[in-house]
Amino acid sequence: MSEPHTSTVRTRVVREPHRAAYDRETAYRILDEAFLCHIGFVVEGQPYVIPTSYGRKDSNLYIHGSAASRMLRQMKAGAPICLTVTLLDGLVLARSVFNHSMNYRSVVVLGTATLVDDPDEKLAALRVLSEHILPGRWNEARQPNERELKQTSVLRLPIEEFSAKVRTGPPVDDEEDYPFPTWAGVLPLALSPGTPVADPRLGPGHEVPEYVRSYRRGEFNS
Amino acid sequence: MSEPHTSTVRTRVVREPHRAAYDRETAYRILDEAFLCHIGFVVEGQPYVIPTSYGRKDSNLYIHGSAASRMLRQMKAGAPICLTVTLLDGLVLARSVFNHSMNYRSVVVLGTATLVDDPDEKLAALRVLSEHILPGRWNEARQPNERELKQTSVLRLPIEEFSAKVRTGPPVDDEEDYPFPTWAGVLPLALSPGTPVADPRLGPGHEVPEYVRSYRRGEFNS
Repeated sequence: MSEPHTSTVRTRVVREPHRAAYDRETAYRILDEAFLCHIGFVVEGQPYVIPTSYGRKDSNLYIHGSAASRMLRQMKAGAPICLTVTLLDGLVLARSVFNHSMNYRSVVVLGTATLVDDPDEKLAALRVLSEHILPGRWNEARQPNERELKQTSVLRLPIEEFSAKVRTGPPVDDEEDYPFPTWAGVLPLALSPGTPVADPRLGPGHEVPEYVRSYRRGEFNS
Repeated sequence: MSEPHTSTVRTRVVREPHRAAYDRETAYRILDEAFLCHIGFVVEGQPYVIPTSYGRKDSNLYIHGSAASRMLRQMKAGAPICLTVTLLDGLVLARSVFNHSMNYRSVVVLGTATLVDDPDEKLAALRVLSEHILPGRWNEARQPNERELKQTSVLRLPIEEFSAKVRTGPPVDDEEDYPFPTWAGVLPLALSPGTPVADPRLGPGHEVPEYVRSYRRGEFNS
């Protein structure tokens, strides 16, 4: 809680406040391990929640998408958004149904995104996004051309008003439930890579690159 | 598209409409494989997106939580919500940076949730939730008591206005990019269980149950 000014009444964790964190280090660690977020925006009073990828550079998050998408049109218009990232780490089996839980790490960022106009920042942001998802790939793929850059919108969301929430460890049961005769503990869950599948149209002589073969994220599977 | 009435202008997929599905079978398959959703709601014009678990019975989704939580208070008050479920299936590596993508399956449900008042429906809904996340567990844990039921709110969200979006398969590059000299294909990703970790306070004689040891979801890792 080194930077309590990042928390406002809007991001203050109400439920289970002992699981809350408001420091950048905790938030950045979660934001850097994940790459899929859910963005909430409002159209005529109706909230929408859409999954998309993101990248982080310093205290900014970058999101990209088609200039034609409903979400990006809303965001460009300066609508308030909420960007939420969740890493699911396990199922927590308590003795009582009531105390069952999940281990997870999540970050909520509130704010307004700004369209990245500058061509250099835009290209750099796309590289940040790409390298965030799959480090090493950018330099081995065909770079974006003018037409593609024009079709892509990039938005910048400053990480200013945010909070993190983390649950780790074993179940916590009511004291009188500990003798209850059932197994209790944690079933860890992690997003794990499978065996790479080559494009059927891949020509001969292209080995699976090291950055694909050894893909892992953060504390992934550790 | 057997039930096109489930799609409205609000759930109609604008971007990449060929990836959209509006039939219940597709949506239910995704909703049944996942158990974590992101719920969007609005407070004073600001959208919030919060991760939570859910269960499905027939054409209803059930969500539970503390009666004190901000999200549940909003939902109980009849605020419009958006419940989004996303399964991430892989990274799609194209020749061009621009055509990189992800394989995923997602469902968006719009609507208004209703508090479940009836004690029988409430208990049944909690069982649906528990069995949705970890089939077999409910009967092996200590059942909810009066006090716990009072502390828990259960809400019902009918699956009426919804859409699904699915991307599968290899990358799709521009025809002129296929000779570009790089590996292309899919790196599959799936939420995979690790080795169960017993609660340090677990007494002797409790083996890891079969429903934990053999945990898998839907087309999980297939």
